[in-house]
Amino acid sequence: MNFSFAQLENFTIHILQKIGCSEEDARTAARVLLAADVRGVDSHGVARLSGYVRLWEADRINARPNLRIVHETPSTAVVDGDGGLGLVVAPFAMQVAIDKAKKAGTGWVSVKHSNHYGIAGIHAMEALKHDMIGISLTNASPLVSPTFSRERMLGTNPIAVAIPANKQPPFVLDMATTTAANGKLEILQRKQQEAPLGWIQDRDGNPTTSPLGVKDGGALLPLGGDREHGSHKGYGLGSVVDIFSAVLSGANYGPWVPPFVAFLEPHPHPVGEGLGHFFGAMRIDAFRPADEFKTHMDQWIGRFREALPVAGQEKVLIPGDPERELEAQRMQEGIPLLEPVIADLKALGKKFDVEWIA
Amino acid sequence: MNFSFAQLENFTIHILQKIGCSEEDARTAARVLLAADVRGVDSHGVARLSGYVRLWEADRINARPNLRIVHETPSTAVVDGDGGLGLVVAPFAMQVAIDKAKKAGTGWVSVKHSNHYGIAGIHAMEALKHDMIGISLTNASPLVSPTFSRERMLGTNPIAVAIPANKQPPFVLDMATTTAANGKLEILQRKQQEAPLGWIQDRDGNPTTSPLGVKDGGALLPLGGDREHGSHKGYGLGSVVDIFSAVLSGANYGPWVPPFVAFLEPHPHPVGEGLGHFFGAMRIDAFRPADEFKTHMDQWIGRFREALPVAGQEKVLIPGDPERELEAQRMQEGIPLLEPVIADLKALGKKFDVEWIA
Repeated sequence: MNFSFAQLENFTIHILQKIGCSEEDARTAARVLLAADVRGVDSHGVARLSGYVRLWEADRINARPNLRIVHETPSTAVVDGDGGLGLVVAPFAMQVAIDKAKKAGTGWVSVKHSNHYGIAGIHAMEALKHDMIGISLTNASPLVSPTFSRERMLGTNPIAVAIPANKQPPFVLDMATTTAANGKLEILQRKQQEAPLGWIQDRDGNPTTSPLGVKDGGALLPLGGDREHGSHKGYGLGSVVDIFSAVLSGANYGPWVPPFVAFLEPHPHPVGEGLGHFFGAMRIDAFRPADEFKTHMDQWIGRFREALPVAGQEKVLIPGDPERELEAQRMQEGIPLLEPVIADLKALGKKFDVEWIA
Repeated sequence: MNFSFAQLENFTIHILQKIGCSEEDARTAARVLLAADVRGVDSHGVARLSGYVRLWEADRINARPNLRIVHETPSTAVVDGDGGLGLVVAPFAMQVAIDKAKKAGTGWVSVKHSNHYGIAGIHAMEALKHDMIGISLTNASPLVSPTFSRERMLGTNPIAVAIPANKQPPFVLDMATTTAANGKLEILQRKQQEAPLGWIQDRDGNPTTSPLGVKDGGALLPLGGDREHGSHKGYGLGSVVDIFSAVLSGANYGPWVPPFVAFLEPHPHPVGEGLGHFFGAMRIDAFRPADEFKTHMDQWIGRFREALPVAGQEKVLIPGDPERELEAQRMQEGIPLLEPVIADLKALGKKFDVEWIA
């Protein structure tokens, strides 16, 4: 069943206000959360709303955070999220990066004491409005094993980079540093299909195709899948995301990152506060005139679109193409939600006396 | 046969002076070039010396470049390499990034009109001496096909990140954005062994295990190997490296990047000057006190080293471990060179009247 962006936005705003968010924060959080739904990352969208609420119920989210810069230089800052929703903390911190870039050419912000911030890409894309390149990283609950390990040490720690063009749509990379994101496994679980080898390992660290492997104590695998195919590179990238997001800011890192699900307790001996993010903004004209750059980006994108495809493929895609096309479609046709998600949201509405969509 | 670092350094310096480099530049270039040999990236070390000389003979390297900043803000710069050896241009540009970081907290430098710069990691590691995080990217001759394409559009475009610790050795990631670097294919070719599936494709874009696939008109594959295993992520990362290195600076990008080998002509209609690099330096204490950060890095590294290994593996590695261990060994026992490389260097010495190692 499909719902309009406005319907889901309205419902989300009301729920977030019920748990104590200001109207402004609720609007910001709803915009970020729903960006996942319209861009096709259904696992990170409104389906997670009740998860955030459960974290608030467990006293692990502060609905009225005092967001502030605790350390800064002309091009850097550390932001303390004060336990707020990542959906609110991240836009604040990205704005700090953009403001720094306006003056110093670039801005780099590491964030501590935050929570899950939705999809990485939406924060990076904020820079596009200012003719800047945007970068967004976050660590996350440990589900991924390093190469040669059978222990869960890292999150799916995404990397997002948004780069403006002129006539072409922007280049928007938004990728987990694992072979496959957790959301893809959930889809296989629902469909009861096998996962390709290279996505997951079982609890002993052996390759498995069971989509339940991670639930049964196994782990997601770093991009590359195994040593022979470069999993040490995916592990290295996920590690850099973890260090920039949390060791630079003073958040929890690696296996200490607090879990998103409220039924799992955070580590009893944390090494920092909450989870961490990292944002960057680079003014294009801090390097060369923006028009010149964007004309070359048009040429870059145009040339890659025209790269000779292999037999059976129509064309080569540019990072961001699939999400943008889906966004256009879903803004028009509505956002499809699965029955269990609808039931979950209805129950949430009933609990907080917020009318579900008429 | 093994040679000492000092022997190979001395020979390299003399050869580079013979083609017109200043003594200072020759020393810088030799240090960077030999870092590859001691760290085990044999394909990027002294074995390439005659390749650089052939580029100079083809008038595609300027031995006396006028390196200069052509655009800057407090935290950024564009450096014009003036056609110089990348081995000399890169250390100059990285120093600009470090100097910017001293004042503004971070420094970001995009470089145009350069050439091959050796291994990415050695430039990032320069930041470690200053309690900074170092980043080093470069584009390179097109050998890699985007996902769904059979055309060579990108180089192996490496990403290097160096992060200081206290008692632990530094974290040094230095990775090609392909499943396997070109040097690994060369080894398989010499040994006449098959490559694993997922490393290369043939000229039609079909997976192949022939190590000659790339020579026969095929391509290296982005990290991930195929769409199902996330090759669009490797393609996306390689693209970001290309754009930061070349579209930001005004160098050639994508299929326009000039080839390293002198027997292939550069593109007749270049879109920029030479090839491009990108460097970053972030002062640790622009985020939090350096001691505090490095203590947490010790804890991060220590915890990951102790992650439970899978059966048959002794331990989990930290990025930079294998290269550092090899460096310690080769500085003591010498650097092994293959017979064809020795013959090539001897011929070079004879040509320029430089005595080969006694």
